[in-house]
Amino acid sequence: MLGEMLENVRKLRPLVHNITNYVTVNDCANILLACGGSPIMSDDIAEVEEITALCSGLNINIGTLNSRTIPSMLAAGKKANGLGLPVVLDPVGAGASKLRTETALKLLDEVWFAVIRGNISEIKTLAAGSGTTKGVDADSADVVAEENLESVCQFVKDFSARTGAVVAVTGAIDIVSDSKTAYCIYNGQPMMGSVTGTGCQLSAMTAAYAAANPESILEAAAAAVCAMGVCGETAYERLTALDGSSSYRNYIIDAVYNLNGKALDNRARYKII
Amino acid sequence: MLGEMLENVRKLRPLVHNITNYVTVNDCANILLACGGSPIMSDDIAEVEEITALCSGLNINIGTLNSRTIPSMLAAGKKANGLGLPVVLDPVGAGASKLRTETALKLLDEVWFAVIRGNISEIKTLAAGSGTTKGVDADSADVVAEENLESVCQFVKDFSARTGAVVAVTGAIDIVSDSKTAYCIYNGQPMMGSVTGTGCQLSAMTAAYAAANPESILEAAAAAVCAMGVCGETAYERLTALDGSSSYRNYIIDAVYNLNGKALDNRARYKII
Amino acid sequence: MLGEMLENVRKLRPLVHNITNYVTVNDCANILLACGGSPIMSDDIAEVEEITALCSGLNINIGTLNSRTIPSMLAAGKKANGLGLPVVLDPVGAGASKLRTETALKLLDEVWFAVIRGNISEIKTLAAGSGTTKGVDADSADVVAEENLESVCQFVKDFSARTGAVVAVTGAIDIVSDSKTAYCIYNGQPMMGSVTGTGCQLSAMTAAYAAANPESILEAAAAAVCAMGVCGETAYERLTALDGSSSYRNYIIDAVYNLNGKALDNRARYKII
Repeated sequence: MLGEMLENVRKLRPLVHNITNYVTVNDCANILLACGGSPIMSDDIAEVEEITALCSGLNINIGTLNSRTIPSMLAAGKKANGLGLPVVLDPVGAGASKLRTETALKLLDEVWFAVIRGNISEIKTLAAGSGTTKGVDADSADVVAEENLESVCQFVKDFSARTGAVVAVTGAIDIVSDSKTAYCIYNGQPMMGSVTGTGCQLSAMTAAYAAANPESILEAAAAAVCAMGVCGETAYERLTALDGSSSYRNYIIDAVYNLNGKALDNRARYKII
Repeated sequence: MLGEMLENVRKLRPLVHNITNYVTVNDCANILLACGGSPIMSDDIAEVEEITALCSGLNINIGTLNSRTIPSMLAAGKKANGLGLPVVLDPVGAGASKLRTETALKLLDEVWFAVIRGNISEIKTLAAGSGTTKGVDADSADVVAEENLESVCQFVKDFSARTGAVVAVTGAIDIVSDSKTAYCIYNGQPMMGSVTGTGCQLSAMTAAYAAANPESILEAAAAAVCAMGVCGETAYERLTALDGSSSYRNYIIDAVYNLNGKALDNRARYKII
Repeated sequence: MLGEMLENVRKLRPLVHNITNYVTVNDCANILLACGGSPIMSDDIAEVEEITALCSGLNINIGTLNSRTIPSMLAAGKKANGLGLPVVLDPVGAGASKLRTETALKLLDEVWFAVIRGNISEIKTLAAGSGTTKGVDADSADVVAEENLESVCQFVKDFSARTGAVVAVTGAIDIVSDSKTAYCIYNGQPMMGSVTGTGCQLSAMTAAYAAANPESILEAAAAAVCAMGVCGETAYERLTALDGSSSYRNYIIDAVYNLNGKALDNRARYKII
């Protein structure tokens, strides 16, 4: 069933508007193409609404937010809401600075998000309205493991109920949940943490999956998260002794390019709580 | 003869000033180095004229244009004109928003371009003064094929006559034309569309070819377009079963790095109309 | 001993704040992860001080400086000084424009840098208070070679004494020096000049080495420079006939990912003057 979500991306080739950081923007564009979507990046207030209106989905990522682009994020988000297009929020580093936390909260306040994807520290910050994050990675105190899985799932469900968004918390175990149903996903590879922006890439890809499956946002987000994890695994299997994090980065996008629905269904490992 | 254009780039190592988008800027820098040129990126109004004056060519790409960088594009373009340096325009997404269309038209109005390179939808937008473009890719309604090749060539020649620029329309068949002579180029590989920014990279490389061959802009632009197409082909031949769009991206730049004039002449496939 | 510097990075995983250019920012993030550190990029004046305060080091690179980010560089630099965190300056293109030269000098005036890393033309510009640089590469007139090594070392020592910074001048022979001791480093590979941003990457990595070895800044900077050179060599050895500058770029970061202290000590080639 998750495989069908992927195949819809390849069939519909959704155009996704990205307002994202300049660190990983190239990877976001390339993974959108690799998964079957089409990217456009644009962040000037004079054009973002028009660009959003051309697209089937919007991806907002606050990784290098600044005073010029924050109003563009709000305007594009509202436009997408008005048009009924799914919007994804990646609250990179929420909790690491007031600007990030407050911008993320303002976005949550003024824009309805179809999906919010972040690490557990970022999502906890959004839920609490404040927080502390060690840079752009999750605090070790916050790790999701088998022992606390049920309580974390309940927390995610509650946050989903409050925001109306499907919430994707990614980490060693990924949780993708609406207010009632949580996918606990076991795909992935720790070495993905050695490549910058695998989270940003996943958010961009999630926007394509949501855009191609607007009636099935939960399954679409779960499929995107599984797909990224599966590709992290197959890319890892391909590594030679001399390969390192840069070849791994390429192999992940290569794997996304080569993944099909059947392979996704075969390799997806998750349980539903 | 096209091969000579390439060899002049390797001989002269032209420094090219790029005011370009943040999505594909790294690829533009790397392809400039790979082809034998040297890149510098700079977009602050306080320095762009000085930077242009150090260079042998200028590449203006509106892919992520914004209120801060548009005046810099105009200032650098005028400076280059004053110094007699070739300027390339890549009107990314012209037709997709008023800001893009109007900025491209304003640039055409105030700056003389040696080369304008875009897809057919972007070029039609510039020629008509308005248009609609599906994001940053050409509309399927606009495709250049054998059936409409002569009429498209005439359109491109007319647009070249009006602007005084060599016009490069890239797609399944590429057309590079001044007001009298059109190169119809058959090199290239459809998979290049799966890598973000191959068009941006080509524009940057075209600036280097023009800078190294200022007396032969038409041949220089045709050579750059052929070279990119040939490298798309040789990179494709190198792909293994596990490779995808990310390895392909690397192999294209590798191929540019390894290409010489003789190989370009051997593999170039074009006719002149 | 240099190997110990590297191992401390892997042990302590220092978080490094980068205010850097948008051309090579992704490579900077990836090399920081590859060497064992952790990157965060942030340049808005509203948050840079908070972000710096989360980190163990700061890397300031003026490669695409602009009116919005220059105040952020100054604010973050002062914050880091107040907290006693090492700050690295990469004066990209100092000498190529008044804006670059003046910004670099202002930074030197208001911020204390633990390490300044640039090519010989950039460092000469900073030392003289003015200069001319051919874009972002060193002038050929300035090349460091065996014949002028002693006089260049004395120049670097003097500049170090004036600024209180360890100064790293990279080129065919690299010089890393404080006011008394100069490491002359022979590692490296000319083909590194075909990849954009190997200098930027080295500066980012140097910030991680300095952050993990705050009591041994000279040795830390020398270790980072050696490590980059060694990785340029091992990556070169790995190239196949079809590989070019893009595969080389990946192999360098792969090599950084795979390098350990013992291998660094084995392959480091330097003399102390």
